[in-house]
Amino acid sequence: MPTSIHPTAATHVLPATIDNQQWIYLRHPDGVVGPEHYALRTQSLSTVLSAGEVLVEARYLSVDPYMRINQSSRPTYNALPHALDTVQTAGVVGRVMASGVPHLAPGDWVEGMLGWQTHARVHHSVLRKLDPALAPVSTALGALGMPGRTAWFGLTESGRPHAGEVVVVSGAAGAVGSLVAQFAKRHGCKVLGIAGGASKCDWLRTTLGLDWAVDYKAHADADALAATIKALTGGVDVYFDNVGGMVTDAVIPLINLRARIIICGTISQYSGGLDQPESGPRFLHHMLYQRATIQGMLARDYAHRMDEMLKIVGPWVKAGSLVFEETIVHGFDQLPATLNSLFTGDHRGKLLVAVDPL
Amino acid sequence: MPTSIHPTAATHVLPATIDNQQWIYLRHPDGVVGPEHYALRTQSLSTVLSAGEVLVEARYLSVDPYMRINQSSRPTYNALPHALDTVQTAGVVGRVMASGVPHLAPGDWVEGMLGWQTHARVHHSVLRKLDPALAPVSTALGALGMPGRTAWFGLTESGRPHAGEVVVVSGAAGAVGSLVAQFAKRHGCKVLGIAGGASKCDWLRTTLGLDWAVDYKAHADADALAATIKALTGGVDVYFDNVGGMVTDAVIPLINLRARIIICGTISQYSGGLDQPESGPRFLHHMLYQRATIQGMLARDYAHRMDEMLKIVGPWVKAGSLVFEETIVHGFDQLPATLNSLFTGDHRGKLLVAVDPL
Repeated sequence: MPTSIHPTAATHVLPATIDNQQWIYLRHPDGVVGPEHYALRTQSLSTVLSAGEVLVEARYLSVDPYMRINQSSRPTYNALPHALDTVQTAGVVGRVMASGVPHLAPGDWVEGMLGWQTHARVHHSVLRKLDPALAPVSTALGALGMPGRTAWFGLTESGRPHAGEVVVVSGAAGAVGSLVAQFAKRHGCKVLGIAGGASKCDWLRTTLGLDWAVDYKAHADADALAATIKALTGGVDVYFDNVGGMVTDAVIPLINLRARIIICGTISQYSGGLDQPESGPRFLHHMLYQRATIQGMLARDYAHRMDEMLKIVGPWVKAGSLVFEETIVHGFDQLPATLNSLFTGDHRGKLLVAVDPL
Repeated sequence: MPTSIHPTAATHVLPATIDNQQWIYLRHPDGVVGPEHYALRTQSLSTVLSAGEVLVEARYLSVDPYMRINQSSRPTYNALPHALDTVQTAGVVGRVMASGVPHLAPGDWVEGMLGWQTHARVHHSVLRKLDPALAPVSTALGALGMPGRTAWFGLTESGRPHAGEVVVVSGAAGAVGSLVAQFAKRHGCKVLGIAGGASKCDWLRTTLGLDWAVDYKAHADADALAATIKALTGGVDVYFDNVGGMVTDAVIPLINLRARIIICGTISQYSGGLDQPESGPRFLHHMLYQRATIQGMLARDYAHRMDEMLKIVGPWVKAGSLVFEETIVHGFDQLPATLNSLFTGDHRGKLLVAVDPL
C-alpha cells in the first residue's frame, strides 16, 4: 500500500480553482439571529491538495441551537465568541471530490465541522467516513451525529433512567429531544414530551409513541403548565431540559425525590438572555427538598465516545425502529434564514439545509 | 442481666409528676418567625416509666434554620408542615433523670429530638448517649451533631473537594458553614467564606484561617459581590451554599469547569420565599457552559452514617484543632426569640439555648 498521496485524486479532472460559496458571520445579534447577521461571499479555492488533504463538496449543512450560544457576547463554554468575519462554524456532510489519502476516495461520504461553505479543503483527520449502507448519510448530522450523541449520553450518563420512572423532555420534538424521548421509552420509562403546538404533540404521541405530550403554548403560564404535567405524571424523576425559561419553571417544582435534571440546552434564553439574563422564580429550595441533581452537559464531553453510541443506536436506525425525523430546507442561500427558523419556526426533528451538487 | 426495668430508676426520689415547660408552635409565620408564633405552656408530666423509657431533663436546646422550612405552608422535604399546637421539634442535649434501660443511668448525658421542652419521657432508642470526656456535650447539637454531619457529608460526598481547588462557602460563620470551611482547608483547598459583617469576616480570616472572607453586606448587589469574589479567587470549583438569593446569584456565574454546587440551605429565602418564591436571574446556562452539578442534600440522608463522621471529626474536636464556636443564650424562655435571631441576628457558629437544672 502506498503511504504517499493516493492516485485517485489525479484521475478526476478538476479545475485549478473552484468557486467556494461561504456564509460569513458578520455581526453580533442582540436578539434572534437571522440573515442580517451574515453575508454571502465567494472564495476562489485552490484544488491543489497538500499531503493528507481532502477536497469535500458539501451536501448537507447543519443549523444548530449552539450556534447562537457561540454568538453570545459573554463567555460561554468557549472563552471567546464565534469570530466575526469568518465562515459560520457548522457540521457538514459532503462527498469527497479529491483525496490525498488512501482511505478516502472521490465519491465517498464524509462528515466534519466544515462550516457553512459549499467546499472545503481540509486535513483528512477532521473527517469521519460514512457508510451510506448503514443509514441515510444526513443522519451523521442528527441521530447518528452530534445530536444523537448528546441525547444518548445526556440521558444515560446524566439522567440514569430506570424502568418505571417518569422522564420529562422539553423541546421533545427537536433534534435532541425527540431522540431522548425515544431512548427513555426503550429504558422502560414513562415519557412526557413538552413541545410547542398541537401538531408537534400529536406527532409525539402517535409517531414517537410517548405516554403523554403537552403543548406549552396552550398554557398561560408556568403554574398552568405545571398543573397539567402534575395531573398526568404525578411527579418527575428525570427532566431532560433543552429549553429553560417558563417550561423549566413549570417542571422543577414537580420533581420527585432524587430527581435528575439534565441541562442540555436553554434555547428559550438564547436570543438575548445569555447576554442579559432574564428573571425567573428562584427554585433551589426544591433541589434541597428532593435532594435532586442538576447536571449540565455538552456534546463535546462525549466526542471520544461516539463509537459507543453508534454501536447501540446505529442498528436501531438501520432497522427503522428509531424515528429520526429530518426537516430539510433546500438551497445554500437558505442557511441564515433556516438558522433563524430554529428559534422562530415550527420544524420537527433535525433541521438541515441540503445543497445540490454543481 | 435483667431485661426488664432497670433498678437505678427506683433509687432516685422523683415526684410522681414534673412540671414540664413546653414551647408550643401556635401559628404559621408569613415572614420571619418569632415569639408571636409560639406559646409557653406547662404540662404535668408523669415520671412513671414504661418499659424501655427514659426521663430526660433538657440542658441545651437547639434552634436551627430548618425549623423555618418546616413552617412553610407548601410541601418541603416533608409532605406536611410542622403541626400547629404541638411542641416545637428540636434537637436537645440533656441529662437522664430516670431510666428503664441498663445502658443509661441518671446523670448520663444524651442527645435526641426531644423538642422545645424542659423534660421528656421517651423510648431509649431515640437517644444517643454522649461521652463528656470526648467533647463538650453541647457539640452533640453542633460540630459532632446534625450540623457537623451535614457539613462533613455535604462537602465530601456532594462537593468532592480536591487539594488546590477553590471552595466558596456561604453562611461561612454559621453552624454548618464554619465547619465546611475548616473541612475544606483540611482537604488542601483554598477557601473563601462569605458572611454578613466585618466582624464575622475577621473571625473567618483570623480564627478559622480561611484564605479569604467577603462581607456580602458591604456589596450593593450580586454583580459587585461577584466582582470581589472573582478578583480574589479567579473562579470557583466548589460552592457550598447555605444562603441562596443574592449571594448565590453572585457565585454561580463564577463557577469553573465541572464545578460542584451543594445546596445545603437557602436561608435567605426561608422567611416567606419558600411559600411565594421571589425572582432572581436565570442561571442554568452557566451549568451548561461549565458542565457543572447542583446537588441538594439534607442531614437526614446521612443519619445512618453518623459514626463515620464522628470517627474523623471527633478526634479533631477532642484535640482542640477544630474551631466549633457556640453562641449560647441562657433561659428556656428565650427559645422563640433566639430562633428569630437566626434570621435577623449576628451570632457565630452554632446557636443554642441553655437551661439550668431545676
